Amino acid sequence: MRFGTLTIVGVGLIGGSIGRAARNCALAKKVIGVGRNVESLKKAAELGIIDHYETSIPAGVQSADLVVFAAPVDLIASQVIEAAAHCPPGCLLTDAGSTKQKIIHDIDQAKFPEAGVQFIGSHPIAGAAQRGPESAREDLFVNKTVIVTPSRHSSEAGVIEIEAFWRALGAKPVRLSALEHDRLLAWSSHLPHITAAILSGILPPEARPFTGTGFKDTTRIAAGDPEVWLPIIKHNREALLDGLSNLESAIGTFRQLLRDSDWEPIRQFLEKGKRGRDALGS
Amino acid sequence: MRFGTLTIVGVGLIGGSIGRAARNCALAKKVIGVGRNVESLKKAAELGIIDHYETSIPAGVQSADLVVFAAPVDLIASQVIEAAAHCPPGCLLTDAGSTKQKIIHDIDQAKFPEAGVQFIGSHPIAGAAQRGPESAREDLFVNKTVIVTPSRHSSEAGVIEIEAFWRALGAKPVRLSALEHDRLLAWSSHLPHITAAILSGILPPEARPFTGTGFKDTTRIAAGDPEVWLPIIKHNREALLDGLSNLESAIGTFRQLLRDSDWEPIRQFLEKGKRGRDALGS
Repeated sequence: MRFGTLTIVGVGLIGGSIGRAARNCALAKKVIGVGRNVESLKKAAELGIIDHYETSIPAGVQSADLVVFAAPVDLIASQVIEAAAHCPPGCLLTDAGSTKQKIIHDIDQAKFPEAGVQFIGSHPIAGAAQRGPESAREDLFVNKTVIVTPSRHSSEAGVIEIEAFWRALGAKPVRLSALEHDRLLAWSSHLPHITAAILSGILPPEARPFTGTGFKDTTRIAAGDPEVWLPIIKHNREALLDGLSNLESAIGTFRQLLRDSDWEPIRQFLEKGKRGRDALGS
Repeated sequence: MRFGTLTIVGVGLIGGSIGRAARNCALAKKVIGVGRNVESLKKAAELGIIDHYETSIPAGVQSADLVVFAAPVDLIASQVIEAAAHCPPGCLLTDAGSTKQKIIHDIDQAKFPEAGVQFIGSHPIAGAAQRGPESAREDLFVNKTVIVTPSRHSSEAGVIEIEAFWRALGAKPVRLSALEHDRLLAWSSHLPHITAAILSGILPPEARPFTGTGFKDTTRIAAGDPEVWLPIIKHNREALLDGLSNLESAIGTFRQLLRDSDWEPIRQFLEKGKRGRDALGS
């Protein structure tokens, strides 16, 4: 066993899948869940995802060797700072948040105890349409990229240990700065989310019966929880302003080409989109 | 058997699935495929989708009771007009094209033989990422909506017979005018396609390794063939100009709200998108 006690703060789809995957590869002797929703924690315990649960961070982290924070991004920094003050010396803290700059900035500002407690940012690029611990899957991270971002409160050895943790769960860690993470994820995740929400929102209700798999695929992520996504958008405002500006301008260009019946550049738009999508695989 | 000979012009995913589904419910004694690509027609014959193939429309339709045109939308009207001059009296012609106004307009202008040959427009809202007859599935239309649009060359009895044809394939026919069809499908299908192509096209290549299922779902339809989609966009230019203008304006509004950190209306955008998507099911 690499860890004695693994504590997971926020036992939903991601946190629950971390619990299942860690059990599956015998990575921790004991898994503790921390959350505010006791019903959900009870369900996670019944499902065998966690051994035990606590509703306060100090109680949940007091014997932890590793703590993973899988709450909405606006909660993570303060949870980490609270945990750092109550966990044992040498404890490693990491997260699963979809943004990194704001979280790491806030944590970097905080004073950590001088007992080798470290925070290393993580973002597993994995998810599912479903929510809650009942949707947790031990293979959620298999072959998925996990971005790992060092902080002021991390050592090279700590970062390596967190990378090994994700590898043990089947994932492929990649190290990036928080700035680079947020810039790239604005394009690959946050901008598509906003676009899907807007497309879904402007669909006239009378067109709903005539949607097929194309519309459903294109807008699937719009079903995501606004309580999760609004904080992500807040955290990544700068990069998203840039992405939205690009998207708006590309749509404007396309509209003008269509107005002018200028078909060759429209064909090139479609071909560029196809090449980009084909490069990603199914 | 409802039909002696069913002729399918364009035996790809859609045409091939019509062939498979028609065989599956013993709807035709004989299925003839017509196309320009002999290799593809041979494959369709080997797969048992068609009994026989022809490379010219006059030869393919001369003994047909029903002809279905499943080619790109810019080819359909001239194929239908050619077929009408060579098919037997009483033959029914329909299509599977994703646009309706331009096709029906062009066919309405043409002179049909005075022998009860009818054209009724159809658009099955069904598809798949794959192409070609090897991807054809007998259940592609099961529980899928098919829009049926009468033309100047159709009688009520002919429309009813085409509706019954789609019902026999498992689909649910809905009658709409060509104008209404194109307006609704601009929102539910063509605008999402353009959006997916643009999102895919503007993704910086260095962000590709950080795309997950969200990005892949949102841009899946961008992998569609530009030879199929450019004619659809040409045919539905008016409705798409309106849709693109709405989309551009919604993105602009969102961007301004984000620039002003005006979070409550941004939350409402996300919630409206979620409600719309939740209403469609998985």
